[in-house]
Amino acid sequence: MTDIRREAATLIDALTRHVADFPIPGVEFKDLTPVLADPRGLAVVTDALAEAADGVDLIAGVDARGFLLGAAVALKMGTGVLAVRKGGKLPPPVHTVRYDLEYGSATLEIPADGIDLAGRNVLVIDDVLATGGTLAAAAQLLVNSGARVAGAAVVLELTALNGRAAVQPLQVTSLITD
Amino acid sequence: MTDIRREAATLIDALTRHVADFPIPGVEFKDLTPVLADPRGLAVVTDALAEAADGVDLIAGVDARGFLLGAAVALKMGTGVLAVRKGGKLPPPVHTVRYDLEYGSATLEIPADGIDLAGRNVLVIDDVLATGGTLAAAAQLLVNSGARVAGAAVVLELTALNGRAAVQPLQVTSLITD
Repeated sequence: MTDIRREAATLIDALTRHVADFPIPGVEFKDLTPVLADPRGLAVVTDALAEAADGVDLIAGVDARGFLLGAAVALKMGTGVLAVRKGGKLPPPVHTVRYDLEYGSATLEIPADGIDLAGRNVLVIDDVLATGGTLAAAAQLLVNSGARVAGAAVVLELTALNGRAAVQPLQVTSLITD
Repeated sequence: MTDIRREAATLIDALTRHVADFPIPGVEFKDLTPVLADPRGLAVVTDALAEAADGVDLIAGVDARGFLLGAAVALKMGTGVLAVRKGGKLPPPVHTVRYDLEYGSATLEIPADGIDLAGRNVLVIDDVLATGGTLAAAAQLLVNSGARVAGAAVVLELTALNGRAAVQPLQVTSLITD
């Protein structure tokens, strides 16, 4: 583990809000808001995620908290950030992918014009890897749009939910596990 | 106008997707996604917004597109970014503000512990100033939490909707008007 990964893990540990029984009884929610509201927290988490962005020429941030991290990493790396939006937010034309949730389904969208994704090498960034459904869908959407997905990077991986296996062969970098 | 503001305006103009009749007939939607997906677009828009952040020690980004810009400006300025979230996303305890929409109302929330806002000097960042309802509510939420709001900065100001007047005395910097 690099020094910056070690410092990121320490800061995330120290600053995360742990809240029991949210959003449902029995689940402990990890609220990363204070980590990113801290100057050193934002800088170090950005640096640590950026270590996964070697050779990448575009960062995709997943709506909504992935936008915070995606934009910071993109600025750091000198790339742009592509906002992968929840369905219904963007005007047409869009590329869309539908994916299953525990109950029902959801969609992610990106513009189908104005951004040329053909042959681009993209890193997908989100805050948390849980079941992996959203991350896999975001990667699929990018591949369907002609991009190559180099991998995904998240701050927190909830290992009990087996998201890493679910998103294979997508390679995931996580800064801490829980 | 500074050189960086001039370059930002030129790039925003060149890269924005203009889509007629979205989300409702008669409205032209300005989709800034391609601006931020462009390396120079992200860098220059960030630099231009950061000119409004002089003396600020925290950036507040408004859910969801304000997260992209808020995080980039915060990284650039060496501050943290506070995610101002739509209601219901954060675990308790939270500070909440309710505000009116055209039909019904909405809430914004920030954590009520883990981040000390007393005496902090905050710049609020969002993508678009429309009616100003969301921006005014975000500023109110921060003030209610003990912070001082130095102003607000947006990429695009829709002048026909008079948001600038609605959010007074909040000072708003916009990179382009339409």
